[in-house]
Amino acid sequence: MGRVYNFSAGPAMLPEEVLKTAQAELLDYHGTGMSVMEMSHRSKAFDDIIKKAEADFRTLVGVPDNYKVLFLQGGGWTQFAEVPMNLMKHHKAGYIVTGNWAKKAYEEAGKYGEAVKLASSEDKNYTYIPDCSDLPITPDMDYVYICENNTIYGTEYFKLPNTKGVDLVADVSSCFLSRPIDVKKYGLFFGGVQKNVGPAGCAIVVIRDDLIRDDLPDYVPTMLRYKTQADKDSLFNTPPCWQIYICGLVFQWLLKNGGLTAMAQKNEAKAKIFYDYLDESKLFTGTVRKQDRSLMNAPFVTGDKDLDAEFVREAAEQGLVSLKGHRTVGGMRASMYNAMPVEGVEKLVAFMKEFEAKHQ
Amino acid sequence: MGRVYNFSAGPAMLPEEVLKTAQAELLDYHGTGMSVMEMSHRSKAFDDIIKKAEADFRTLVGVPDNYKVLFLQGGGWTQFAEVPMNLMKHHKAGYIVTGNWAKKAYEEAGKYGEAVKLASSEDKNYTYIPDCSDLPITPDMDYVYICENNTIYGTEYFKLPNTKGVDLVADVSSCFLSRPIDVKKYGLFFGGVQKNVGPAGCAIVVIRDDLIRDDLPDYVPTMLRYKTQADKDSLFNTPPCWQIYICGLVFQWLLKNGGLTAMAQKNEAKAKIFYDYLDESKLFTGTVRKQDRSLMNAPFVTGDKDLDAEFVREAAEQGLVSLKGHRTVGGMRASMYNAMPVEGVEKLVAFMKEFEAKHQ
Repeated sequence: MGRVYNFSAGPAMLPEEVLKTAQAELLDYHGTGMSVMEMSHRSKAFDDIIKKAEADFRTLVGVPDNYKVLFLQGGGWTQFAEVPMNLMKHHKAGYIVTGNWAKKAYEEAGKYGEAVKLASSEDKNYTYIPDCSDLPITPDMDYVYICENNTIYGTEYFKLPNTKGVDLVADVSSCFLSRPIDVKKYGLFFGGVQKNVGPAGCAIVVIRDDLIRDDLPDYVPTMLRYKTQADKDSLFNTPPCWQIYICGLVFQWLLKNGGLTAMAQKNEAKAKIFYDYLDESKLFTGTVRKQDRSLMNAPFVTGDKDLDAEFVREAAEQGLVSLKGHRTVGGMRASMYNAMPVEGVEKLVAFMKEFEAKHQ
Repeated sequence: MGRVYNFSAGPAMLPEEVLKTAQAELLDYHGTGMSVMEMSHRSKAFDDIIKKAEADFRTLVGVPDNYKVLFLQGGGWTQFAEVPMNLMKHHKAGYIVTGNWAKKAYEEAGKYGEAVKLASSEDKNYTYIPDCSDLPITPDMDYVYICENNTIYGTEYFKLPNTKGVDLVADVSSCFLSRPIDVKKYGLFFGGVQKNVGPAGCAIVVIRDDLIRDDLPDYVPTMLRYKTQADKDSLFNTPPCWQIYICGLVFQWLLKNGGLTAMAQKNEAKAKIFYDYLDESKLFTGTVRKQDRSLMNAPFVTGDKDLDAEFVREAAEQGLVSLKGHRTVGGMRASMYNAMPVEGVEKLVAFMKEFEAKHQ
């Protein structure tokens, strides 16, 4: 059927231009006579790749000099442990639980100290972001943790919590590079790249220098100490070279297309097309409180499971794929990351209208 | 210059046929309309990829049903911690230290219990494999650990240690799939795939069922518990999908080319061509005791640093690249993994002869 519009929550669409470059260079990267998959991570060619990737990322995001950028393995799940292992100096941290991943991170942190649940939206199946203007944060907390965009439930923080001076740690996996951010507001943020940035198998961690500690408990593995990779610019051991290469191509694509400001405009435009229709639809309903709707992941339902399944099936026949919702929410979910063109969302909405007309 | 003969110790050469398949399928995998890099790890298409990869691996290696095969992130280095965290039930294990990686694993294990150095070849810069027929192994040891092929120093175990009934754990990274093995002789073995199997960013762990434990210390992260991934067939979280896909293509290539028996014959033939010349050369000398020479990694020197550098430079001009030795050994190192054709080694030897004639 040719290339499809892939609404998967992740791994997800990548820019076609990036894939074509990777394809063209696959057997011979820039005249080296070898694939990026074959080159030593200590080679000049790969060193140029990782250095340029980091430099472009810093430019894109505006990372100040006193923050390190690390390319790590193990995904977000490994960070759920790595964050408390490294940052819980006083064995206490606050967690705002707005979904499945925030909850897993909160539970994992409990292994390494006191994880305080500051707020939660579990009472309404995580369909909203709690008021974070005056949470019971105390100065003895090592950090306050959020999951900034909740992939499964489709909510997003449009205002960061008032952390009362405590360092903010954020899992930004599913809003990574979707809009400009102010890095200085975070002590650390991390994201698995497989949603908005690149192929699964790499997490990018941005951490302020003073949070990189040496005095950790003995049980912390060498590989789960930020200092290990920070001291070696992510080349302590063999990194996920292919992922770093593809992420680098995505960074170049983003810079060429106006950076994160332009990307935010595009993402807002796509979300507006989708949500405007959703609000007027009599068949489809969004599951999230309006002001907290994610620009990236939009869950919606018809209220009829069989009809939901029919929708997903028929959409796929039109080249609109991976629309099935997560089992904990049901229905459908349209993920509209950076690489999803406006036309993809337009085509989805057109199909939804057609489907609605048939099932009135 | 077209494709080169790449003697890198890893990441290293992949079969050209595999790269061509990956290239052809890069934008549209089997009519799905998307790249393997873009597909959900929960999709039918990816499920088929990982299931076939595991099944082919089991066939190739002859993995019995009571062993699990896991595709993990974090490389061998993460296994240096994960092995003792999971297997040191009685907090004691024996380590045979035959090189840099064995030593790192030994040191890391010391964080989690008593790591006993059973033997070492450090006295002669790891140029040999110690006699392992009667080591001071005691029944209270949870396992005996070896690094089966020492990438940096170019040694290889051609006979496994007598472990006196204690489970054997082996890092097989740089001899992975280079020859048939008897899986039953191991409690666990693991390898980073980036030498002989696929692109950096994945380690394959083969572990006997009864070693997968639930009763681990609290501090062991969810992601570093073998049980976590074993219970979910390596799909607990988003796996390194691209690596698993490429490894799967390599497994298919190996099966099509006669499996590990044929691969061992090819690797022996390549090593014979190389070492036969090395033994008669008056310019080049091997650094390893003859009976312990690795079939995979062959370090050699001229005894003159400037001449070594000249050799590496001139070889590269002939399309024989990545021949520089590791800094701890110096000189040169030719890594001849599965994907290195016989012609590559023949061309290297021809060039060495020519170089020798010029510098007599």
